[in-house]
Amino acid sequence: MMEFQLDHATEILRRTPATLNSLLRHLPQEWIVSNEGPESWSPFDVVGHLIHAEEADWIPRARIILEHGEKGTFEPFDRFAMFEKSRGKSLDELLDRFELLRGESLEELDGMSLKPELLGKRGMHPELGVVTLSQLLSTWVVHDLGHIGQIVRVMAKQYKEAVGAWEAYLPVLRR
Amino acid sequence: MMEFQLDHATEILRRTPATLNSLLRHLPQEWIVSNEGPESWSPFDVVGHLIHAEEADWIPRARIILEHGEKGTFEPFDRFAMFEKSRGKSLDELLDRFELLRGESLEELDGMSLKPELLGKRGMHPELGVVTLSQLLSTWVVHDLGHIGQIVRVMAKQYKEAVGAWEAYLPVLRR
Repeated sequence: MMEFQLDHATEILRRTPATLNSLLRHLPQEWIVSNEGPESWSPFDVVGHLIHAEEADWIPRARIILEHGEKGTFEPFDRFAMFEKSRGKSLDELLDRFELLRGESLEELDGMSLKPELLGKRGMHPELGVVTLSQLLSTWVVHDLGHIGQIVRVMAKQYKEAVGAWEAYLPVLRR
Repeated sequence: MMEFQLDHATEILRRTPATLNSLLRHLPQEWIVSNEGPESWSPFDVVGHLIHAEEADWIPRARIILEHGEKGTFEPFDRFAMFEKSRGKSLDELLDRFELLRGESLEELDGMSLKPELLGKRGMHPELGVVTLSQLLSTWVVHDLGHIGQIVRVMAKQYKEAVGAWEAYLPVLRR
């Protein structure tokens, strides 16, 4: 288990646009829009969700903690906003937009010059209670990694039948 | 669910070296060598495993199916060979080696000029019984995607405590 360290965290965050590009850009459409069944998300949906989180979650909440501490109020985050917002857009547009927003987020994060005492600053989550700025930033990292994992899992499952008997050796198909 | 299609599959396979580079190259060492506990694999171990699969599994088995059909015998695959083989190597060396081997594999795959009737050709797996060439190639794709998912899951779990109460919202930490 690692302790949060700002430079370790930003090393992950700055890589996510390139990882998504490498995994998804210019892939045949079937890989992009297939999901795990009703109510589940395709890789296209996940990229839209990451865009919405960039706009409405991470940096806005960091600002609230820095400016208002526990008295601040987080806007509720809409986990399904991307179904409306991504409509009619291409995956290329979404990947470009995510890359742009992530760059801006990291610039703003850098501009906050977060010293250790600021990282421990507390905020109030409407459901989870007291949280800290470093917990928010750690969550950002885990959220990125979790959704990359979701994208590759969803893609892997498209070949659940194509692998035949090998299914037994591929735990990703049972997650 | 998608049916196997050779060009769809190679689109995924050719991207994996770049995805691993983007996720891992030049990351702080802690991200690279941390695992999920005893007997589990770090991202470093996973890259070594992918190298060994490239050398001993996919193309060698495809050759056996093409040349000997159900009479051929697959060499048993050692899932733990990388612990010995990666010793003393840097992650950079492993990533370079994987990229090189994957390029060679895809060239050889291309040289096989696999028409649909060849893709249905049968081989004999020592434990799973009859398998086909297209099932082997589908498994290669799912194996790549599954291990990318493992890498990001292992990394995410390093921040299981750092995220504090947000753990409840991050399913990747419970996989």
